[in-house]
Amino acid sequence: MPIVTIQVTREGTAPGTALLTAEEKAALIKGSSELLRDVLGKPLDSTFVVIEEVDTGNWGWGGLPVQEFRRRRVSQTG
Amino acid sequence: MPIVTIQVTREGTAPGTALLTAEEKAALIKGSSELLRDVLGKPLDSTFVVIEEVDTGNWGWGGLPVQEFRRRRVSQTG
Amino acid sequence: MPIVTIQVTREGTAPGTALLTAEEKAALIKGSSELLRDVLGKPLDSTFVVIEEVDTGNWGWGGLPVQEFRRRRVSQTG
Amino acid sequence: MPIVTIQVTREGTAPGTALLTAEEKAALIKGSSELLRDVLGKPLDSTFVVIEEVDTGNWGWGGLPVQEFRRRRVSQTG
Amino acid sequence: MPIVTIQVTREGTAPGTALLTAEEKAALIKGSSELLRDVLGKPLDSTFVVIEEVDTGNWGWGGLPVQEFRRRRVSQTG
Amino acid sequence: MPIVTIQVTREGTAPGTALLTAEEKAALIKGSSELLRDVLGKPLDSTFVVIEEVDTGNWGWGGLPVQEFRRRRVSQTG
Repeated sequence: MPIVTIQVTREGTAPGTALLTAEEKAALIKGSSELLRDVLGKPLDSTFVVIEEVDTGNWGWGGLPVQEFRRRRVSQTG
Repeated sequence: MPIVTIQVTREGTAPGTALLTAEEKAALIKGSSELLRDVLGKPLDSTFVVIEEVDTGNWGWGGLPVQEFRRRRVSQTG
Repeated sequence: MPIVTIQVTREGTAPGTALLTAEEKAALIKGSSELLRDVLGKPLDSTFVVIEEVDTGNWGWGGLPVQEFRRRRVSQTG
Repeated sequence: MPIVTIQVTREGTAPGTALLTAEEKAALIKGSSELLRDVLGKPLDSTFVVIEEVDTGNWGWGGLPVQEFRRRRVSQTG
Repeated sequence: MPIVTIQVTREGTAPGTALLTAEEKAALIKGSSELLRDVLGKPLDSTFVVIEEVDTGNWGWGGLPVQEFRRRRVSQTG
Repeated sequence: MPIVTIQVTREGTAPGTALLTAEEKAALIKGSSELLRDVLGKPLDSTFVVIEEVDTGNWGWGGLPVQEFRRRRVSQTG
């Protein structure tokens, strides 16, 4: 009966893409359900997975909206 | 002061509908608030209810996106 | 496949009790699962319920720990 | 490594606005990250903030959808 | 910056054990962080994992506390 | 009606302390409630705050339990 909640920013992994693809979501669902089966012996049928996509403006890191945080990190280490 | 969070897939209950209706949401809010009052004596005014609708592609069951999981269940038992 | 999460303070409903009883928890589980069945047609077997009991010192309302908030409310209206 | 989750209704603070502004979100992220730093000594870089905007129809208070609850409160106290 | 939350019942995987072991928790943390890296390219250092262990009396399935639900399932299929 | 959830590891801020103090929790509750009032105009009485303390063994960062992650960071930068 585990519940796995995966929160990620709503953005694509490839340049020019703006969303997770259905294939990526299916891979997250499959992988996390199998993890619970392999580590704790939970049957696949007893695991729920919920993927929450969060707009980048709604995600904060380092006291800043995450895209601003990334820009500063790059410029600091560049 | 209870908080009730209800997570459901974003889909209608009647064929051809794609969303929970306002009436269904109001019934979930009323029913869960009354449950907390009846079982634990919590005043209605002290309960918050949050309904989270999750896209079907973002919900996993049995290691699969939920619509794929349902299709396989039907074909197994059909 | 709904998930219902019920967050309440960890305290008893009767004077001198410090915890929710097993009967109260069972009633919350039964009531919220039946609500999802009655309003949205979800089979009982497809609903998970998680009850989270939160220490009163970890719950805030009105900018105060909840027990302090309750004391002030009583003295204001007394 | 704290995680701060802020759930609010999806509505603007000024009349005629329908959404939180980017400035308001940035202020919530900054303020809550600084709070964790000031109270618990957590470095800004170790705090995540997630803002969840919930449609008003999906938020319940007093056993009612929140906008209905507000209307009744106003009429009671008016 | 993903956040993975894993909710499981607080019980051991081997007969006579009552808790998840530190090794099992480490495996869940490692596996889910690597999943986010492999599927979405997220650096390990940017993923938080939170494991929430829920008392079996606080987890409901099928309208019942989960241990009662399991007992009935076994007797039905036995 | 906002809800602020603050998740932190269960450990003290001073050497030799193992828990958040009541004063620290009250400061988190006060600070986050005032933040919602100052930024979004939410009345203090309409904000709930929930503090979740998570055992360090149940918190992962960088693919490792957080205390192991911290040890490696220190040795890398030492």
